Order: sequence, then C-alpha cells, then structure tokens
Amino acid sequence: MTRKISDSTVRRLSLYLRILEALEREGIATVSSEDLAGRSGTTAAQVRKDLSHFGSFGKRGLGYAVRDLREHLQRIMGLERRWRVVLVGAGRIGSALFDYAGFRSRGFDIVAVLDADASKVGQRWGEVVIGDSASLEDIIRRHCVDVAIVAVPVEAVQGVVDRVVSAGVRGILNFAPTRLRVPEGVALKDVSLVMELEALSFSLSRHASLGP
Amino acid sequence: MTRKISDSTVRRLSLYLRILEALEREGIATVSSEDLAGRSGTTAAQVRKDLSHFGSFGKRGLGYAVRDLREHLQRIMGLERRWRVVLVGAGRIGSALFDYAGFRSRGFDIVAVLDADASKVGQRWGEVVIGDSASLEDIIRRHCVDVAIVAVPVEAVQGVVDRVVSAGVRGILNFAPTRLRVPEGVALKDVSLVMELEALSFSLSRHASLGP
Repeated sequence: MTRKISDSTVRRLSLYLRILEALEREGIATVSSEDLAGRSGTTAAQVRKDLSHFGSFGKRGLGYAVRDLREHLQRIMGLERRWRVVLVGAGRIGSALFDYAGFRSRGFDIVAVLDADASKVGQRWGEVVIGDSASLEDIIRRHCVDVAIVAVPVEAVQGVVDRVVSAGVRGILNFAPTRLRVPEGVALKDVSLVMELEALSFSLSRHASLGP
Repeated sequence: MTRKISDSTVRRLSLYLRILEALEREGIATVSSEDLAGRSGTTAAQVRKDLSHFGSFGKRGLGYAVRDLREHLQRIMGLERRWRVVLVGAGRIGSALFDYAGFRSRGFDIVAVLDADASKVGQRWGEVVIGDSASLEDIIRRHCVDVAIVAVPVEAVQGVVDRVVSAGVRGILNFAPTRLRVPEGVALKDVSLVMELEALSFSLSRHASLGP
C-alpha cells in the first residue's frame, strides 16, 4: 500500500480512533458513518472515503462495529507496535516530555536520554542515565533506536537531526521552532508551542484592530 | 486591514522573525530576500509576497534592515502587546505549561489557574492561587482575561471552551486531542502531542511496511 495519505486524513483517523475509544468505554457496539462524522466535525462521505483507503469496513445499513474498527485503526496507525526512542535534550521541555505518559501508551519507549551539558550527563531519570550527546551515534546503534525526540535549542537542532538521520533514525519529533531539512523516507513531525503562540497572538491582534 | 492571511503565511512570518532575531544577535545589519528565503526553506518571491501584505519593506538592491524588519514583524504578530491568560487545568500538562517561560516572553501572562479537583484548589503556584473551575466566568471577568489555555481531559474540553467563550474570551490555546467548535471571531490554536505522535507512528509503520 504505497498510496500517499494526506496529513489531514491522518489527523481525522486520529480523531475517529479517539471517538471509537470513547464509544467503547460507554459500551456502544455499533456506530454509523453519520454519527462518526457528527462527532468529528466532518461529513459521512468523508468518513467513508478516509476509511476506504485501508479496505472495506462496516455493513450497509448497520454501520461499523466499534471494537473492530477501533482495532483496525490502531493497526493502520501502527499503534500496536512499539518504537525505541532516544530523547535528545534534557532541559525543561525534555524533562516534561520524559514524564509524559502519552508516549508509552502510544508505543513510544524512551530508552535513552542525551544532553550536551556535562553537568547533566550521569544524572538518573527513572531507569535511564543521561548520556553525552557526543555519543549520539553509538547510543542509537547500541539501543536500536527507531525514533528521536529532539528538544534542543533552535541553533543546535539541524545539526542534531543530521546526526540522528545518518545514524539510521527514521522518525523525528521536533520541538524547536524552526523548519528542519530531512531526507525523503524520514518522517518528521513538529510540535512548536512558540509558533502556535505567535499565530494566536497574530489572530488576536487582527481581531482587536477590527474592534470598536 | 481585513484581508485573510493564511495559516501558512503566519507560520512563515514566525520563521522570518526567528531568523531576524538570530541575525540581530550575530550583529548582521541587512539581509536580502534571497538570504531570508534560503534560511527559511522558501523562495525570495514568497518572502516578498508574504511581507507585501503588511506594507513596503526593504530597498531594491539593498535588502531589508534586520532590526527594522524584526520590529515590524513583532508589531504585525501582536508581540509588543500583553495578553491576560487563564490556565484551565492544573494537571501534568497544565503544570508544565505554567513553568514554560515562552509564554511570558511572547506577551502571555498567566493571571489565574483553575482546576475542577477540590484537592488542587487553594494550592499556590508562584504568585497564583489555584481557583475552582466552577467560578470560571467570575475569574475571567474579574481578571479581564483575553486568552484561555485549556489543558483539561478530552471529555471536558468542549464544555470548558463553551464557557470561556460565553464569558468573553477571544483566544484559545487547546491541548486536548480533539477538534473544538468555536464561534467566528474566536481564535483557536491546537497543540496536540497525541495527534502528532499518532501521525508519526502512522508514517513510520507505512515506511516499515515498504521495507524489505
């Protein structure tokens, strides 16, 4: 299955999954595409189109079996697998991320933490001892790392990303507010609070300047 | 100025601002649109088009004065203003956000923190005492709140957002992994680590399934 699936489709699949999990907790066994659409702010036709990329689900007139579709979506999203993760950057953001339970529940296991600051190297976080960023390539190979979470200052981030990519990492979650270059075949996702804040500030100012 | 500016333009303005700040720190006085474009992964024509929405900057053949353009962009993004913020949700994410210095440096001052959990109400975080979510509307009016940062469980978030909007809040930063409904004129930005993680997992799985 090599067809390109758009980011907005993937985003909706996440939403459907979240809704199906909630329905399952409420003990609801089937759901129509209309109901799924209503709860995710889209149309029934869009729901059917999104799911049709991955096979044939649901029965005409009966809707989808909630549990079956939830399991299918989890498999489609790769959430039944586990990924081995290196966290690069043991600062404020890195520390909050290390504590974030959502990684583990979605299959991301942080197996190593690295920092360039000698005063942090050797500190113990839970079961992990912070290593020296200088040994990034070693650590990645030794721990068979699949994914890098990069929480380093914006000046350092492209250099770190180039190194993790050459060491064989295929997935990157970046927290620095910048646009990174990665080769084709490497999955990159950005989470930048700074950029969202600036976009919010921009919208607020424009609304404000239109006010009385 | 009521023209609609696209999200991707705003995102690039953020990038230009970041680059200009870095150039200024390095003591560089002027920059060409080609150079700005190269550093932000776009084209010189795009840079000129993005900036032309907001007036006329730069001199033909001389480029942009770094400091001037940085100041203009800050004004355009509303970053010279301050916004009064209520943080709703004093859990793990709320606590990390409260500690995040980037809010203050971009003009967002957290003036109140609320939680629905009685055991948290009354706790002191820095200069703020955690209030009861039941008094959301009161707090918003009393503190002249402009913006709500919402870090509550996904089941509760739409209800909280409806309440802050009716109380007059015009900007929302949402951390729950769901799609929220807000009326026109309310600026909403989402930061969902869960959805980025699931998108990353999806990309990784697809790449993996194409492998040997």
